[in-house]
Amino acid sequence: MGDAPPEEHLLVILPFPEPVALLEDIRDNFPYVRVSYFQQKPEEQGGSDVPKDLLASATILCLLQYRPVLKEVPKLKLVHFISAGIDHFLNHPLVTDTDINLTTVSGIHGPPIAEWVVMNWLVSSRLYDQTAEWQRNHIWYNNKTLINKMEDNVEKRVGILGYGSIGRQVARLAVAMGMQVLAYTFSPRPTPASRRDTGYIVPHTGDPDGTLPVSWHHGSDKVSLHDFLSQNLDHLLISVPLTPSTTKFIGAEELALLSKSCTRTTRRPFLTNISRGKVIDQEALIESLKSGELSGAAIDVADPEPLPADHPLWDAPNLHISPHVSSLGIEYMQRTMDVLKVNLRRMEKGEELVNLYKRRKGY
Amino acid sequence: MGDAPPEEHLLVILPFPEPVALLEDIRDNFPYVRVSYFQQKPEEQGGSDVPKDLLASATILCLLQYRPVLKEVPKLKLVHFISAGIDHFLNHPLVTDTDINLTTVSGIHGPPIAEWVVMNWLVSSRLYDQTAEWQRNHIWYNNKTLINKMEDNVEKRVGILGYGSIGRQVARLAVAMGMQVLAYTFSPRPTPASRRDTGYIVPHTGDPDGTLPVSWHHGSDKVSLHDFLSQNLDHLLISVPLTPSTTKFIGAEELALLSKSCTRTTRRPFLTNISRGKVIDQEALIESLKSGELSGAAIDVADPEPLPADHPLWDAPNLHISPHVSSLGIEYMQRTMDVLKVNLRRMEKGEELVNLYKRRKGY
Repeated sequence: MGDAPPEEHLLVILPFPEPVALLEDIRDNFPYVRVSYFQQKPEEQGGSDVPKDLLASATILCLLQYRPVLKEVPKLKLVHFISAGIDHFLNHPLVTDTDINLTTVSGIHGPPIAEWVVMNWLVSSRLYDQTAEWQRNHIWYNNKTLINKMEDNVEKRVGILGYGSIGRQVARLAVAMGMQVLAYTFSPRPTPASRRDTGYIVPHTGDPDGTLPVSWHHGSDKVSLHDFLSQNLDHLLISVPLTPSTTKFIGAEELALLSKSCTRTTRRPFLTNISRGKVIDQEALIESLKSGELSGAAIDVADPEPLPADHPLWDAPNLHISPHVSSLGIEYMQRTMDVLKVNLRRMEKGEELVNLYKRRKGY
Repeated sequence: MGDAPPEEHLLVILPFPEPVALLEDIRDNFPYVRVSYFQQKPEEQGGSDVPKDLLASATILCLLQYRPVLKEVPKLKLVHFISAGIDHFLNHPLVTDTDINLTTVSGIHGPPIAEWVVMNWLVSSRLYDQTAEWQRNHIWYNNKTLINKMEDNVEKRVGILGYGSIGRQVARLAVAMGMQVLAYTFSPRPTPASRRDTGYIVPHTGDPDGTLPVSWHHGSDKVSLHDFLSQNLDHLLISVPLTPSTTKFIGAEELALLSKSCTRTTRRPFLTNISRGKVIDQEALIESLKSGELSGAAIDVADPEPLPADHPLWDAPNLHISPHVSSLGIEYMQRTMDVLKVNLRRMEKGEELVNLYKRRKGY
């Protein structure tokens, strides 16, 4: 049935011990692929000294930080980066001087981060900190007093700024809770094709066809953003990439608009940021929490990181801070290899690779 | 267009102040229904003294605790109880001596309880207590150490004991997270029709057609239960009603089986109980948490309630206890009236009522 795929040599160079079972799985599934592993030494131990013969025969590299020298990898066809972006390689000759395929693991962060987001919504709305304190004090509190302090998410509205893999998985969970999702993107998405998620999708998650939002909105200007924030939102999720145009994207004016336009009398809007600290004006966030403009907020990112011990964010009311952990999990390496496996199959079939870096577009 | 519906008199008798807006909404939607409200006094203040003329003309009663005298309500056609069951009325002449339609608000508890369940799963798996403690201490912890301590729910398996409105909404959220749902019921559900949820469903929630589980299981005997628990489950949700056959349904043997059959090496099963405290052998639960058979547990119910301050459950490791609050929320009264409104429309059309108490079946 057709030609056998060409012999390939996958050379994996990572700064930690060999993921033995994962590489064995690749050997099992792709018998024509020779798989080698080299553990990259930390910079302070003299950096890496990958054997020249491994590099010379490598057709596929799998990397995190290792910076190959082009003339040492003459047979290279594909570099698979196990990071979501390749910002740290943009000036490398691989990007600037070749047409070698470069792929990322963009898309694999949706499930853990979405779970972190929804955990924070529920911890806030279902008074987890309060019930945990009662438990520590061995108090079975008279629950009748709580009926007017809790609410669930049915028919609540979440605005998602940046509808990528993370926003889509949050949307999936939100819709399961009975919520309405409003999506915001920078470029317009008027057609079904433009709403599709064309990147890697962890199976059984996300919004592959972009059918979950009740409405789509777009724009890179303040007017468009303000229109979006004025739609009676109960939740605002910030999941945009940090760029010059998203720096301080959400400040005092935006938070006031969000709050003012929310007609719900029982609960003010809740803000969640899993993007980057610089996307928010942190002083404004603290003020909105203190004034009650927001019912609460959760941030997994801060500016700067690590956040200094004397920073006022730590003690802002109704705020949960975690130290950039929302994407972490034991599934990470497995999923980086899942993306590679998808692309090995696509190479066999001559199909376009998933998560292929587009040199001209810059992502 | 057809006959006008007959005049009705809805008399609402509840032990708290009049829900003015909700009753106004019924008047607006059903102009032929006269709506009266009477606030029932507490027993210690002499009980209730509902005007006899209101009772005499009432065709529909909406009640929580008020016990009508049959001869005082000669025109009664329907009693709408704003509780999930009518256990407290089973010996009342309304049930034993009449065929008057009795309806409940069964089904409205799914959304808040499901959110409580998933909150607890995520608090445990995403180490919320740990990150909250770091925040209290102003520590931006080095996150790299956490990559092997967190995991998400994609492809994890949850067994749901009792697939009613609560189990179904948990299933909906679980599937959104990428999980597999295994349903357990007492009677067999071999056909699509038998898997349907025939009770009231909060719009945009639940599993109306019973299509979410990857498999259905049933039985009221230990062998069937043990077979169910032996299916490599990561989560067990207990959402069965308390009956003689579910008392101490889950004991030491069941917890050991659940743990032994879970092949995951990174995390032991997690148990969640939103049923009743007596469904679990609490001593066995404490032992399973201490031994590590379970990674954790969450219970919103205990035996007895209130749980005494010196009870060993309070300090069991990796257990979250809340004082029977998972169903609470400001939406409660609104939803009890939503069910009534559905039934007023069905009465207009001569259709069978939703949540109708079946005298012979006892629910």
